Amino acid sequence: MSDVAERALHTRVGRSVSALRRSLIDNLFYITGRSLQKATANDLYTALAYTVRDRMLEGFIATAETYKSSNSRTVCYFSAEYLLGPHLGNNILNLGLWDNLTQAMLDIGVDMETILQEEPEPGLGNGGLGRLAACYMDSLATLQIPAIGYGIRYEFGLFQQVIKDGWQDEVTDSWLRNANPWELPNRERRYPVKIGGHTNQYHAENNHFQTTWVPDYTVYGVAYDTPILGYSVVNTNLLRLWKSEAYSAFNFQVFNMGNHCAAVEEKVVAENLSKVLYPNDASEVGKELRLKQQYFFVSCSLQDMVQIVKSELGDLVHFPEKFVTQLNDTHPSIAIPELMRLLVDEHAINWKLAWDITRKCFAYTNHTLLPEALETWPLDMFKRNLPRHLEIIYEINQHFLDEVRLRVFDDEQLIKNISLFSDGESQRIRMANLAAVGSLAINGVSEIHTDLLKTTVMREFYELWPERFSNKTNGVTPRRFIALANRPLTKLILISTNPQESI
Amino acid sequence: MSDVAERALHTRVGRSVSALRRSLIDNLFYITGRSLQKATANDLYTALAYTVRDRMLEGFIATAETYKSSNSRTVCYFSAEYLLGPHLGNNILNLGLWDNLTQAMLDIGVDMETILQEEPEPGLGNGGLGRLAACYMDSLATLQIPAIGYGIRYEFGLFQQVIKDGWQDEVTDSWLRNANPWELPNRERRYPVKIGGHTNQYHAENNHFQTTWVPDYTVYGVAYDTPILGYSVVNTNLLRLWKSEAYSAFNFQVFNMGNHCAAVEEKVVAENLSKVLYPNDASEVGKELRLKQQYFFVSCSLQDMVQIVKSELGDLVHFPEKFVTQLNDTHPSIAIPELMRLLVDEHAINWKLAWDITRKCFAYTNHTLLPEALETWPLDMFKRNLPRHLEIIYEINQHFLDEVRLRVFDDEQLIKNISLFSDGESQRIRMANLAAVGSLAINGVSEIHTDLLKTTVMREFYELWPERFSNKTNGVTPRRFIALANRPLTKLILISTNPQESI
Repeated sequence: MSDVAERALHTRVGRSVSALRRSLIDNLFYITGRSLQKATANDLYTALAYTVRDRMLEGFIATAETYKSSNSRTVCYFSAEYLLGPHLGNNILNLGLWDNLTQAMLDIGVDMETILQEEPEPGLGNGGLGRLAACYMDSLATLQIPAIGYGIRYEFGLFQQVIKDGWQDEVTDSWLRNANPWELPNRERRYPVKIGGHTNQYHAENNHFQTTWVPDYTVYGVAYDTPILGYSVVNTNLLRLWKSEAYSAFNFQVFNMGNHCAAVEEKVVAENLSKVLYPNDASEVGKELRLKQQYFFVSCSLQDMVQIVKSELGDLVHFPEKFVTQLNDTHPSIAIPELMRLLVDEHAINWKLAWDITRKCFAYTNHTLLPEALETWPLDMFKRNLPRHLEIIYEINQHFLDEVRLRVFDDEQLIKNISLFSDGESQRIRMANLAAVGSLAINGVSEIHTDLLKTTVMREFYELWPERFSNKTNGVTPRRFIALANRPLTKLILISTNPQESI
Repeated sequence: MSDVAERALHTRVGRSVSALRRSLIDNLFYITGRSLQKATANDLYTALAYTVRDRMLEGFIATAETYKSSNSRTVCYFSAEYLLGPHLGNNILNLGLWDNLTQAMLDIGVDMETILQEEPEPGLGNGGLGRLAACYMDSLATLQIPAIGYGIRYEFGLFQQVIKDGWQDEVTDSWLRNANPWELPNRERRYPVKIGGHTNQYHAENNHFQTTWVPDYTVYGVAYDTPILGYSVVNTNLLRLWKSEAYSAFNFQVFNMGNHCAAVEEKVVAENLSKVLYPNDASEVGKELRLKQQYFFVSCSLQDMVQIVKSELGDLVHFPEKFVTQLNDTHPSIAIPELMRLLVDEHAINWKLAWDITRKCFAYTNHTLLPEALETWPLDMFKRNLPRHLEIIYEINQHFLDEVRLRVFDDEQLIKNISLFSDGESQRIRMANLAAVGSLAINGVSEIHTDLLKTTVMREFYELWPERFSNKTNGVTPRRFIALANRPLTKLILISTNPQESI
């Protein structure tokens, strides 16, 4: 039998009801080790998820190869949250397999919509900012724009609300308790992330002034890759989330001496960085851990991008030809000094060239005008965790303010307002200002919001660089919010707009 | 195309070189998400392992169904260790796929023996006792004897030895770091295990005297199932190992208050029970944790067996018709009072009937004559962890000594020697005596060892019950130690003994 004929029969990719039925039974058997008679609802969910996943992977791998061979520029979306919603229904819809899979499930005596309920909501996002990130990932894939979403693989989502004796109680949302069929562990993509400590200056061989950062400790970020399907296209993009791990999960010597909790302390400290998704609006709770979380995912992502540029294009001067990064609100703006650090300290590129590269690589989406929501960090806490970045931000600020002073003569109030540091008793770092200074484009998320941005919180920046400002009104994907959520309405819309069409 | 014809072509079970080749490429693609060009050695290991696993599952599921429908009696092997060695090579050998898989791998440009080296040694066993357990599991499967191996899914094996500056250094053996393709998580099989606390006595409705155990805390055991192939037979047995987990992995409130280590404390304490495999000969290190480990796996296993008897046979009086348990050395002998507790406290069976059931369910393998290796537990430590079991052991001892006093008149030295409790300043519980009293059969592991057992450490028990004693000389499976380890020698033996044979 020829390879082509064998392939055509192949139950792992066929889209007919019979191929899907075979695939469901096989995946139940070979992935969960259960027969149909013994299968639990979760086993059936796993079988259905793998049946769908099998049909996504070809597009996922082909897309990555196409992007690479066509030397395309890739959008890297940096977001602390992705409010994705369950994958299974959305992927079935995007693959156009709804009707055939419903029938194949019915044939084995199972109601598909019941099984869809088995998927835990991914605990990766909380509010509008996270949903925007998810909608962008969906649209970028559908529009066939090369994109990677970078973020954190939170082990626990916000929490599950239960009502106990009439009161709200928050219980742990262990959404990863069962295996997650949508992620592909990519454990060779593993980057060190330094925290704390101090810096040393020295003269390198080339007589350049170089800095090394001696951290208190180092954690590791490990990549978990989730394919993001476009709607009705082969194109499939990548969501790459970082899990934090200790270098060594376990201290055997300490354990043997009987201190069983201390033996896993390094692990606990390291894993905390990707442990829990914080509520967006909890302004003081765990602030320091949030700063570390932000730095953790941004550092892993940029190290990953640097590695890709070096392996594909060789020289890091080509970085802006390969990547542009969209900062989803101020949370990831530590990326700007981190890219500077990677270029200057780790790859010995001089400051001016490094800043030229960096300035071409970032764009900034502002989500809010509320002063209390524009992230700022106390200097001492920032220095305690990221001593080298503080130095870099000082230097960025120095160059920036010098440049402004050349353009606007003798306006120290302006200088005070746009500085990356607030003055007064408790000096703080203004991350929104840092994002504005380091970005080639700045946008608000509705027309009125962008207008207010230009006239209020970012007025001075708008006056300096009006060409950088634009508006991008938030939207939502109609697939998830109509086609998936309300199938009868979808059918009605399709019939009334185009009687020939079906989804 | 008929279902039968479709099945015959089916790449997930075919044994031809071409079916195996297709299967390897498919598993690489659909399990790891990698193409052959991008695959790492670990990806190729995963693809090969799934290709083999796919061909094991049919036998595994069929065997379980056959055992159930034929109402067979199942040997439950209780062992704190299983020194299995890597699965992949052994499974290929047992399935008779060595030559075809070697060729299929060569066809895709990969040397199979190199890929076999990728599998981390399972960190589940350490010494001879663990290897004996693994050899028994292999032989039971090959001889088609219904058997379940019960034990602990240690996260970390003993340690890996490295030589650093001329000295031995022990580093963590994270054998589960990558996914383990040989285990099927069976998360619905989940049992609570109580630790610590105190007991309350009360009169139940039927006027029986009942006891409840109010523990300090409860951990949960979750089943992970590994199929154990027989050699050249369809029969495939089950190794069921328990992972310890906290009920809730994470305390959200404590985490939010900023105490990030305390938030996972419950998890750390619970997970410690299946965290690390202790060296067999470290007599004082972590003694208390070892007791908890032993109790943990024994309790989960017996709860599992009780659940199976209840669902298949209804009444627990049928327990001995369904199961017999072999205790691999004294480590699991806490099983005897634990089964009593389950029957008397949790299922309201009267003491006498419960003891009749229990006495038919255990057999004991003694591995050593060294007094320091015959496990004993200090009374206070035992009571602190297992208060209810201490009461039960007192009662077993009382009945046992009363019975002996009826047979042997006025020999208080004998009574002292065979008591389940040592006297003297530091009273201890003698687990070997407990195993002897609760077992229907007792064996040593070589002729000379069994003879010495009868004449030295167990002399009094031998004089009481000579019919219970027998010898079972330890052996090793010739498959792993000749066929797998030395293939040229194997071929020579086969040619010289039977020129027609091939493996």
